[in-house]
Formats: sequence, C-alpha cells, structure tokens
Amino acid sequence: MTKENIDTPALLVDAPALERNLEAMQRLADGFGLALRPHAKTHKSPALARLQIEAGARGITVAKVGEAEVMAEAGLEDILIANQVIGETKLDRLVRLAERARTAILVDGVEGVQALEQALARRGLEMEVMIEVDTGKRRCGLERLEDILDVVRAIEKARHVRLRGLETHEGHVADGARSAEDLRTRAQAAGQRLVEVAEALRDRGIEIRELSVGSTPAAPYTGAVPGLTEMRPGTYVFNDVNQMAIGQATPSDCALSVLATVMSRPAPGRAVLDAGSKSLFAERVRPGFAGEYSGFGFIREAPGAVISSLSEEHAVVDLNGEALRVGDRVKIIPNHVCPCVNLHEETYVVRGGEVVDVWPIAARGKVR
Amino acid sequence: MTKENIDTPALLVDAPALERNLEAMQRLADGFGLALRPHAKTHKSPALARLQIEAGARGITVAKVGEAEVMAEAGLEDILIANQVIGETKLDRLVRLAERARTAILVDGVEGVQALEQALARRGLEMEVMIEVDTGKRRCGLERLEDILDVVRAIEKARHVRLRGLETHEGHVADGARSAEDLRTRAQAAGQRLVEVAEALRDRGIEIRELSVGSTPAAPYTGAVPGLTEMRPGTYVFNDVNQMAIGQATPSDCALSVLATVMSRPAPGRAVLDAGSKSLFAERVRPGFAGEYSGFGFIREAPGAVISSLSEEHAVVDLNGEALRVGDRVKIIPNHVCPCVNLHEETYVVRGGEVVDVWPIAARGKVR
Repeated sequence: MTKENIDTPALLVDAPALERNLEAMQRLADGFGLALRPHAKTHKSPALARLQIEAGARGITVAKVGEAEVMAEAGLEDILIANQVIGETKLDRLVRLAERARTAILVDGVEGVQALEQALARRGLEMEVMIEVDTGKRRCGLERLEDILDVVRAIEKARHVRLRGLETHEGHVADGARSAEDLRTRAQAAGQRLVEVAEALRDRGIEIRELSVGSTPAAPYTGAVPGLTEMRPGTYVFNDVNQMAIGQATPSDCALSVLATVMSRPAPGRAVLDAGSKSLFAERVRPGFAGEYSGFGFIREAPGAVISSLSEEHAVVDLNGEALRVGDRVKIIPNHVCPCVNLHEETYVVRGGEVVDVWPIAARGKVR
Repeated sequence: MTKENIDTPALLVDAPALERNLEAMQRLADGFGLALRPHAKTHKSPALARLQIEAGARGITVAKVGEAEVMAEAGLEDILIANQVIGETKLDRLVRLAERARTAILVDGVEGVQALEQALARRGLEMEVMIEVDTGKRRCGLERLEDILDVVRAIEKARHVRLRGLETHEGHVADGARSAEDLRTRAQAAGQRLVEVAEALRDRGIEIRELSVGSTPAAPYTGAVPGLTEMRPGTYVFNDVNQMAIGQATPSDCALSVLATVMSRPAPGRAVLDAGSKSLFAERVRPGFAGEYSGFGFIREAPGAVISSLSEEHAVVDLNGEALRVGDRVKIIPNHVCPCVNLHEETYVVRGGEVVDVWPIAARGKVR
C-alpha cells in the first residue's frame, strides 16, 4: 500500500521522524538522570507505547481508567493514571485493573483517598497514589501545604493506599512565555516548587519516593532541577504547531500529519480541504516566540497558506499565492496533536513513501 | 437502569424535550410549505433519523459519504450529502451507495462534475446533484453567476449527472447578528439571493426544481422567502448554548446534556469536572444578543458557575458562589452540540428519570 491509496482525511505517521523523537526524549531524560514515563494520551496506541518502553521508558502515563484498561489489555505493565478517579463504577474498574497491571492514580483531596480506600478494601488490594501539587496551572492539584498534609494524613489512615510521591503537570509554563529563557525560568520555578513541597513533607518525617513532572515544552528545562525523579512528556512523540511556535520543532520534527484533499476552489485565493474540526480539532496555536502561526494547522505543501477557519468537515484556506487545485492532497501538521489524534481510528505508518503499518488508536475516545 | 448508574462523562438525551423539538421544527417547515430534510450530523444516530422521518421529514442530510453509508445501512432511503465528494475512492463508495439509497451530492466546480460523471459511467448509474451557492458564508459554493453557469454546462454535458437544484448553507447569518430582527434580515437576504440565482438560471431555460436552505438559527426566518422548497436544519433536535445565546432556546429546550462528575475541589471557588474538551469539544459560544454565556458549556445545576477553561479531560469551573462537592454529578449543555456528540459512542435516552434506551452514535467519526 502506498500513501496514494489512503482515503482522506487520514493520519500519517512519518516513522523515521517518530524514531528520532523517541530517541531524543529518552536521551534527554537519561541525561537528567530521570525516569521517563511518557503520557500516552498523545498517541493512544499500544503499539507506540511499546516503542516508548523499548526505547527505555519505565512505564506509561494515561489520563483515564479506560485508557489504562486498553493499555493493560495490550500488555503494558506499569501505568500511572495522571488524574483523580472519582465515582464508584470507575473505582471498581480501577481496582480490577490493578489486579492485572501495576497501577497508580493521583489524589488531591481527602474524599478521593477515602473512596479509593473503600474500593481497595472490598477486594483486599493495595495501590500507590501520588498527591497532585498545583505549581501554577490552577486546574487540579493542591497549592497549600496544610491541604497537602490533610491528604497525607488521610493516606496514612487508609490501610490499602500507599503514598508514592508528588506529581505536577507544569504545562502552563508555555502559556505566554516570551522567550526560551523565560520558558526555562518558569519551568524550573515549577519544578523547584515541587521539590520544596517534598522537602517540607520530608521534614515532617513523611516518605516521598517519587517527584514526577510532565510537559513536553517544559521537558528540556524542568528536568534540570535537582531532586526530581521522573518526567511524563506526551506531545514529543509527534510534535505539532504549538511546538513549532516555541522553537522546539521544525516541520521535519513533526511526525504526524493529517492527509487531506482539496475539494473546492470556489473563489480566487480560496481553497477548501476535506478535513475540518472533526479531523484536526479546533484549537488556535498557543502564542509562541519562535514564529507566527495564525491558522488551524500548517500545510506542509503550502507553507504560505493559512487555514483561516474550520467547520466540522471543511478547512477554509487563504492561499496567499500558493497553488492548490481540486484533487490535490496535502499534509497538515495539527496545532495540538493530542485532541487531533483522538478524532481518528487509526494511523498509517509511512517509511520511504510506503505504508509499512497501520496502528489502531485503540484508546481513542476512552473518556471514562 | 437509572441515570445514577451511568458512568461519566456520558451523553443524556431528554426524550420529551427532543420530541417537542422534532415536532416544532416539522410544524415550522409545514407552515412555510417547505420539505424538511434535517441534517443528521447533529445526532449521527439512525434511531433519531428515523424519528425525524416519522415526524414528517422527506429525507435526511449528511456531510460525508461515510455518514451516508451508516444511514443507508440502517434503512434511511433519501439522503443528501451536503458536501463536495472529491477523490476516486470516495466516488466509488458514493456510486455503490447510490445503488442502495436515493443519494445526491453538492458540486461547486467543473472538476467535481466530471469526476462524478466518470464514476457513475463506470457503473451505468445516474445521480442528481445540487449546485452549492455561496450566500455569504465564504466556504464552499459559488458566488458568481458565470461560475455557476460553467457548472451547469458541465452537468448538461455529463450523461449520468442530473441537476436537482441549488443549495446554500446560510449558517453565517447568526455570526455577529445584533438582534433577532438583524438575524431575520440577514437570513432572508441569503434566501433571497438563492432565489435570484435560480431565477437567473431559469431565465436561461435551465430547470431548477429544488431550492434548499439550511441552518437552525436561520430556520424561523429563511423559510419565509417565497420560492424555496426545502430546509435542512440540524441543531434544532438538541439545541445548545449557541441557540440560547440568540434567544431561540431555554435550558429546558436543550435536549442533550453531558453528564459529568465533580472530581476535585482543589481550591476555594474552584471545582474540576471529569469532562474536558474530549467530551464537550472546545468551542466558545457564538456571541449572541440574548444572554451572556462566557464559559465552555452551561451547567444546569449551577447556572451561576462558569467553565472557565478546558483541558482534554478537565473542565475547570469558577463556582461564583455555587456549591459543588466532590462526587456531585452535573449536566452540562454544550456550546455547540454537533462536534460534542461526535466525541461519544452512545446517548442514554432518559424519560422520567429512567434510561429508556441507548442509541449508538453509529455515524460518529465518519470523516471520509
């Protein structure tokens, strides 16, 4: 099968670029002396998770119990669900999963610990948790030491819950960063904050084995903070326009494209592609400091063109002098690769112009 | 099964609200003397398409060949693919589909007509097409009469392609409308433009049987333009916050909600739900004139709260004094219901607090 036989829209993975990305991140983590636990939400594919493990990763990260179930089913054995797990049905599934694969979750409240304890006790199982610390993202996670200590005490009371350490997602450091130096400063402040919390807990005699950070844009910087033990970047396997906008990737580092067809040339200067927000996702590029990317994706074959608007099944392209004809096929680098991948059922793996594999995106849409 | 047993996030359909919406739109179309051909992209469910036909619709509209295949497989018999179909693989599928169900597509260029002709000729089949006219949306569709005449001539030359009429999607009229009156003026201008093009073609002896418009926000207005024959609204079955923002729906008219669980209360005034952009989609509300809706969805149980940001698996809620506890379940009305539904595999149909049915979203993700 060649690329020419693939119907559009479709995801293409450039195998050599992917392999370079896998190796580069493993080398970065090794250089920092950190374990790598990549976030599989970016690719949602057991095949790719196995490549990450083969490249040296200690285990994987996922966001949902449903993603963990798919990965465990495919033989992945060490899984961190980097999220709170709330609700009886989900906790029952979590505990059954933990019987098959080494599984840990995040907690950021006493209720979460207590509900987990009850679910574990029903089946006589133990599980490790990490306390999520808010280092600036203002999403989940605790900021104040007294709140963190409340959770530690709840864990100490629970007979089946064990504290592995502290976790943060410092993805916010790329928002509004004005330069690579600014990004470095912000990433290291987030990492430093996690270490400070750990020291404060250790001063009180609390054992904190693991300190885990995670975010691709912060990865080159956060890991340099002494005291951390693990990093969990996700996007790096594919990269995307967000990564290009902060100078961490060029188009040739972007391993994933959405193949699309020009389906209309209704007016001079305007083309319409058959890939819309149902294929690309509709996120604007995070403003960066390394280039201007105003559109909804970067068209490799027409870098001067701008995808000015998306409907569900249409990408409207301002051609800006680029030539595209009806029937032409183009490869679009998505702005944010993770939610884009989630919209597709498989990726075509391409090497030297040939399709060498098709990977099911088996954990696609596993929102529960 | 009761609502309490459903794991989150999940789609809930309020059956009585849905039935009211189905009846109201059919009555509107009947009042205008127009045939109703609802756009099934909103629900992507054969079960719901059948309800639309039973309520009086003449057929259905879809956006992709893959959606049409699912609907034909489920027994739907009269399908307009309101999109250009470009590419040999897709055209082959289209022609095979047309052997099973009455199928028509849009064209807006000579190349599209010629490629369709070749695909039809290979199997000795005929198909009707509608010429897409751009009445202001600036997406696909032709504006200039001379371009439209070029397409008409290509259709006349093609032996297997028949011209059914003209089509427009006037969805742009709701963008930036300042009042209901402004919306009416803009919708009717779009409908009027379609009629003018038809008259110009008829003056040249060209037969135009059908004039089809389609958009839920424009539906109460466009249909009043004399000369139209068909309308294709989609969103009306469920409604959404976009519809609330222009005063065409109240929360009780919104038949679809995303059920979510509060999974974290990490700081005073902030809650985090387990439904993110992978469950709600990440579109801002279209600015309207009937209410301020700044968040990423409307929480029925906490109308004063605002979903201030979404990650893939998190909705961050500014509580603004509303009370939500970890474990509470809430129903969120999505901003734009169509791409939200596309993220889920099934809808739970609820009547009187009981789950009375589960509809597979069988045409979910059919981007080809």
